[in-house]
Amino acid sequence: MKAEHINPFIESTFSVFETMMGIKPSKKTVELKKGDNPSYDISGIIGLTGQAIGSVVISFPESLALKVVSKFIGEEKSEIDDDVVDAVGELINMIAGGAKKIFTDKGLKFKISIPNVVTGKGHKIKRPSNVPCIAVIFEVDKEFFAIEVSLKENN
Amino acid sequence: MKAEHINPFIESTFSVFETMMGIKPSKKTVELKKGDNPSYDISGIIGLTGQAIGSVVISFPESLALKVVSKFIGEEKSEIDDDVVDAVGELINMIAGGAKKIFTDKGLKFKISIPNVVTGKGHKIKRPSNVPCIAVIFEVDKEFFAIEVSLKENN
Repeated sequence: MKAEHINPFIESTFSVFETMMGIKPSKKTVELKKGDNPSYDISGIIGLTGQAIGSVVISFPESLALKVVSKFIGEEKSEIDDDVVDAVGELINMIAGGAKKIFTDKGLKFKISIPNVVTGKGHKIKRPSNVPCIAVIFEVDKEFFAIEVSLKENN
Repeated sequence: MKAEHINPFIESTFSVFETMMGIKPSKKTVELKKGDNPSYDISGIIGLTGQAIGSVVISFPESLALKVVSKFIGEEKSEIDDDVVDAVGELINMIAGGAKKIFTDKGLKFKISIPNVVTGKGHKIKRPSNVPCIAVIFEVDKEFFAIEVSLKENN
């Protein structure tokens, strides 16, 4: 994937977090993801197809997921239940949707599928070894979450 | 999703297993998946978009994944490594691709994204609560694997 393809996802993440939750995450690192880094405790995944094909993942430790989702839905959440799963799915949907709009303005069109949400401490989300992935780590209140993007232009 | 939408995925699963591995799984159950059923140890996920939108998942216990992948790649595998991750991604890609061909012949077109592969004992793969999912359990040599499909026609 091209490095410039990560920026619309970063921009969209900032926008969704600020607009929907009033949270301003700070961007800590942007790097090529190694296959064996574990994900956090709950991850939303959405597939992308069209002129560009791939996937985008948001992954939270449980405590940060609960904090973010509580602000997103306006209700205090203390455990990972269906509401939290739905909210994490909706968050990755909104982030992918925001990025899609930026890409469309640049002339690169794709469609987004329906999210899956993975739960379970220690789960890892991998791609085929020929599919590079860029991981962006964000910080909120001294906790971290990740946005992971794999995207290649269809030729 | 419509119940009839599961059949192309079942047909494609049989075809891929028999053609690529010489394995004839038997179909045990087809049912609406409840959100809290755990997945097995390694799962391939692929997103679908177009006239129909959704996702398809294959999930194996570790021992069966190793047995199936060993036949798929013609090399004995004793642990979940990058080769096994790649093979599980390729298997769900082929199953989705086979189903896509059957749907295209029926006049329903969609595109498939790039697979993600989730590893970790006890991980769960969920959908938003308004997205129904049909799970098909197959048996191979007294072990089980699952194909889970969420698909809705775009209106």
